[in-house]
Amino acid sequence: MGLPFSKYHGLGNDFILLDNRHQSSPLLTPEQAVKLCDRNFGIGADGVIFALPGEQGTDYTMRIFNSDGSEPEMCGNGIRCMAKYLEYLETKAGHGHVTPYSYTINTLAGKIVPTLQTDGQITVNMGQPRLLAGDIPTLLTEAGDKVIDQPITVANHSYQVTCVSMGNPHCIIFVEDTDAVPLAQLGPLFENHPVFPQRTNTEFIQIVRPDYLKMLVWERGAGATLACGTGACASLVAAVLNGKSDRKATIELPGGPLQIDWSTSDNHIYMTGSAVLVFSGEANL
Amino acid sequence: MGLPFSKYHGLGNDFILLDNRHQSSPLLTPEQAVKLCDRNFGIGADGVIFALPGEQGTDYTMRIFNSDGSEPEMCGNGIRCMAKYLEYLETKAGHGHVTPYSYTINTLAGKIVPTLQTDGQITVNMGQPRLLAGDIPTLLTEAGDKVIDQPITVANHSYQVTCVSMGNPHCIIFVEDTDAVPLAQLGPLFENHPVFPQRTNTEFIQIVRPDYLKMLVWERGAGATLACGTGACASLVAAVLNGKSDRKATIELPGGPLQIDWSTSDNHIYMTGSAVLVFSGEANL
Repeated sequence: MGLPFSKYHGLGNDFILLDNRHQSSPLLTPEQAVKLCDRNFGIGADGVIFALPGEQGTDYTMRIFNSDGSEPEMCGNGIRCMAKYLEYLETKAGHGHVTPYSYTINTLAGKIVPTLQTDGQITVNMGQPRLLAGDIPTLLTEAGDKVIDQPITVANHSYQVTCVSMGNPHCIIFVEDTDAVPLAQLGPLFENHPVFPQRTNTEFIQIVRPDYLKMLVWERGAGATLACGTGACASLVAAVLNGKSDRKATIELPGGPLQIDWSTSDNHIYMTGSAVLVFSGEANL
Repeated sequence: MGLPFSKYHGLGNDFILLDNRHQSSPLLTPEQAVKLCDRNFGIGADGVIFALPGEQGTDYTMRIFNSDGSEPEMCGNGIRCMAKYLEYLETKAGHGHVTPYSYTINTLAGKIVPTLQTDGQITVNMGQPRLLAGDIPTLLTEAGDKVIDQPITVANHSYQVTCVSMGNPHCIIFVEDTDAVPLAQLGPLFENHPVFPQRTNTEFIQIVRPDYLKMLVWERGAGATLACGTGACASLVAAVLNGKSDRKATIELPGGPLQIDWSTSDNHIYMTGSAVLVFSGEANL
């Protein structure tokens, strides 16, 4: 009768997953996805993820329509949900895998390889951080220099910041206590500061131990969110560059923990976290 | 494997419906209901409705746990969803009904009789309005008098108000254009005005035609909402008392329309509206 779907969340970032393996274009239009994502009149979600046939030699293709109908290149929380959903579909069909098991997934941001771990968590290679001011981008220093522990003035107060790009800009500030940060007040001031020509994501980081950090995030265009995968990666890099943390640490976000590992062998960042099946159902379109 | 449920909404006020017909106490604790209602980590809803066996001669009993774990006596939008869910369960079991068909449902507010209409809408007898100031309650006049088109001062501005109780207090203000009402600013000032010792719900009503009204609502304890059934009833009563509308009219709320009929034969108010099945599924508890 209806459209079968499964609902997953990764640290509270929640998605409707659709089995689109028998058709190369998404089963829904962006307008239909917007309706499904409505939290009162629809199923309710941050986005709809389509599990499509592989392309260019990959196992599968992932596409996402956000709750506003826009299409992001990739989503770190979303691709963990996609990996768990593929495992669910394949296990149901009698084709389970021995873990650890990696899928190759084509996305609009290129090929991504999530790995299902034996404990049920999923590891994703998030690529290399970029540190030059011109790549962030920020005007805090010359384009060819890094921004590590440099001052910036916000609301008549001087903050020491470190800037990291994970494909999107991040500005990291270390604080004594994340609970004391007036995020809704400071977030927009950092996001729209003139030294960030493409605006910026902002993370406030409390170092609990060298292997355990707490993070508050203000996402560019989205405000305070429960979790930001690229923000956790950028924050670990900033903590290492400032001598404040190990290269492998747990980052506690409002939506839950992520393990971040900045590999010395390939300079890539590996992010490990959960993805949870909340329910499956059939939707009336 | 999981817990079967159906998700309905009545004008955007959305509920998880559970088949509790084989057990006389709710299948879930309030704490479990709160988790299911979480819009990121759970199914997401304004409340969980349990369809329990009838008591005291009724067909069924309805209980509701709100998303905060509290238990309301009754809910006009919720009981429409309950009636559609009962029809769905009975039709699935091969026991459909010829419409119009009425269920007798026991609630914490007494017996309620929703009627399934042939067009799929549901009519609920909302009882009689109470108009005496002492019953609202309001201190705007003597306890034994009515409050119809009387002045009240809010934020240094004088408003003409009419007060009606539908079991809960309502303060109604007629405006030229609901789009021009600064609801978030005025709502709390009316709600907490000292002339309402138990606070009040507040409705701003635009008379489009004598049989078509537009309504904005500020709910006591909940703020701006998509729909408030008792508010629509109270507003129709206020409009009739002020000679502004027919006794039967459509009220357009932000979440959709309701038909309100203040019967001359029994002085009761009959509210007719929709309830929509959005999806069914199985939840991982």
